[in-house]
Amino acid sequence: MTEFIPPGSRFHPLPSPFPMKRGGHLHGARIAFETWGTLAADAGNAVLIVTGLSPDAHAASNPANPAPGWWEPMLGPGKPIDTDRWYVICVNSLGSCKGSTGPASLNPATGQRYGLSFPELSIEDIANAAAEVVRSLGITRLACLIGNSMGGMTALALLLLHPGIARSHINISGSAQALPFSIAIRSLQREAIRLDPAWNGGDYDEAHYPESGMRMARKLGVITYRSALEWDGRFGRVRLDSEDPGHNDDDPFGLEFQVESYLEGHARRFVRHFDPNCYLYLGRSMDWFDLAEYADGDVLAGLAKIQVPRALAIGANTDILFPVQQQQQIADGLRAGGAQAQFIGMESPQGHDAFLVDYDRFGPAVRGFLDTLPAA
Amino acid sequence: MTEFIPPGSRFHPLPSPFPMKRGGHLHGARIAFETWGTLAADAGNAVLIVTGLSPDAHAASNPANPAPGWWEPMLGPGKPIDTDRWYVICVNSLGSCKGSTGPASLNPATGQRYGLSFPELSIEDIANAAAEVVRSLGITRLACLIGNSMGGMTALALLLLHPGIARSHINISGSAQALPFSIAIRSLQREAIRLDPAWNGGDYDEAHYPESGMRMARKLGVITYRSALEWDGRFGRVRLDSEDPGHNDDDPFGLEFQVESYLEGHARRFVRHFDPNCYLYLGRSMDWFDLAEYADGDVLAGLAKIQVPRALAIGANTDILFPVQQQQQIADGLRAGGAQAQFIGMESPQGHDAFLVDYDRFGPAVRGFLDTLPAA
Repeated sequence: MTEFIPPGSRFHPLPSPFPMKRGGHLHGARIAFETWGTLAADAGNAVLIVTGLSPDAHAASNPANPAPGWWEPMLGPGKPIDTDRWYVICVNSLGSCKGSTGPASLNPATGQRYGLSFPELSIEDIANAAAEVVRSLGITRLACLIGNSMGGMTALALLLLHPGIARSHINISGSAQALPFSIAIRSLQREAIRLDPAWNGGDYDEAHYPESGMRMARKLGVITYRSALEWDGRFGRVRLDSEDPGHNDDDPFGLEFQVESYLEGHARRFVRHFDPNCYLYLGRSMDWFDLAEYADGDVLAGLAKIQVPRALAIGANTDILFPVQQQQQIADGLRAGGAQAQFIGMESPQGHDAFLVDYDRFGPAVRGFLDTLPAA
Repeated sequence: MTEFIPPGSRFHPLPSPFPMKRGGHLHGARIAFETWGTLAADAGNAVLIVTGLSPDAHAASNPANPAPGWWEPMLGPGKPIDTDRWYVICVNSLGSCKGSTGPASLNPATGQRYGLSFPELSIEDIANAAAEVVRSLGITRLACLIGNSMGGMTALALLLLHPGIARSHINISGSAQALPFSIAIRSLQREAIRLDPAWNGGDYDEAHYPESGMRMARKLGVITYRSALEWDGRFGRVRLDSEDPGHNDDDPFGLEFQVESYLEGHARRFVRHFDPNCYLYLGRSMDWFDLAEYADGDVLAGLAKIQVPRALAIGANTDILFPVQQQQQIADGLRAGGAQAQFIGMESPQGHDAFLVDYDRFGPAVRGFLDTLPAA
């Protein structure tokens, strides 16, 4: 299937072969990334951002691509992640379809898309690939490693597997292990895609595409990314009027309420812009993630194995997917490992996605942490 | 499609034609119901139970059907709803497929199943049909009207449209209006069914049945019926072993975690035991329900139009589908209408379905209310 590569992307070739945690290797794989700001002579001002499930590396506008990025208000000169001070790198996850190698990429051994022949993907693989990019830029120690959502998992894996790679860490709406509610949601998303006959065991093309499976999966995701509280105020029981997209008076079970149209709009924007097999692989990698595996089943002990001097774990107390208790746990575990670690549970109505919209709360928290970071 | 009628069901023929709120009439329709206990000579000891989306009228075992019912621990001699004192009626909702007339029933005018030719169903229709059963039994005033979940909506409609029909009311995990999170969930459930090619515009049979759509819909429902908190303790990250049903080592995206097997088990038990069109109709009736329509858009004022002397509204504070604020609102609104109304938000981990499992909390609350009801 199609990959969706932002213009101006840079690419780093991974070592070939690149070993995967659960077995197998990738050959000729690459990671797409973008950068902002200027790396200091001592390489001491580097900040790495690892992302959630779907974003590309284009976190914000830059000279190579002036289009707004997915975290535009957070990243730039004078912004909370101030690119006048920091050299910022954002990587597209291994296994994604936004320029990094994943199931939608061509397998150089066959000239065909990997599809389900892509090796099993784990969060640790995504972390190891990101570490390669960091090192390729001449950075041995990041000033800060920032991870959002799935990226919060990736960041923890990166810190654990690459000791000393960062002198601080911001974990946003992340988790040290997948819990059953979120596993259930992702399992159902995968089932929706796999039930679509057009998925065809992972062998589809633009003409025969699992569109309805992806539609269901995305809508289910969006339902869990926000909060009931926000929607009560935002949509209430307001009906669509006849001009709204998706409204159809002739369909007795068609869209009627604004909230349904909102989901429909999200689905239409996503379904053809993210590869279904990549969605399956990335979702499963989250289900598998569990720092407790590194400490005889004790997740706090797993977190305590991470060596990072300073850390901030933040989230929204309306998050139903990665509940705020998981960010509290990250702060507690890192503190047990010796970090100066702070937890902030935001009174934000916007649920798991709050870090993408509630900049009034998340901006100052990130800025405050970075501004008070001691020099390297 | 098949109807699923418990043995020992009784039936009450509705007036024919029976008018529907949103237009059209039913001819020759009926309501299935069951009873427990003995009606007092003055008919003053009658309790009516109106149900959630999927239950039949067999709330508990009785001489006509000794099989355990869906609310067995709540209903019987000496139980919280004590059938030594109360004459209890439970009705299967109009529009359901458990003996009452609905989309899965034969249309007497054509000899064919109604399917999508069934008139639009509203909660008010379900309430009016239940009121007919009450009157047919010689009861003019119920001692108590109890509604769970969707039945909480039905009960409020019944009280509003039939003033004086009850001298008390217990609303359990109910709601005076559908809010956007629950609308979004039900909309997605309907979409899953409608996207299944075997749904075929509502024209299916046992051989060509929208099984995967129903599977998705049911799993999505079950996810919202419980709570993340409960599942953390119940399933954690426990894997299936190879003997577990649904486990398949050869399927790279197959079931792996206990929580996935739990959802799969629920889906298998449901998919062929509830009619897909009935599911669509009943779900939509909940989306449409809004007591604010009776009071210029003010839901509290709509509730305050209800005349009932005593009321109890209860729910679980982990309910994400009908959040406990909605039961608080019911108590507040009924109190504004003159009721002596109490709200109890239970510290129950079991979410929306708590009333079906957490009998240690819900049993005493219901018993306490009924035990202190003054004689008629």
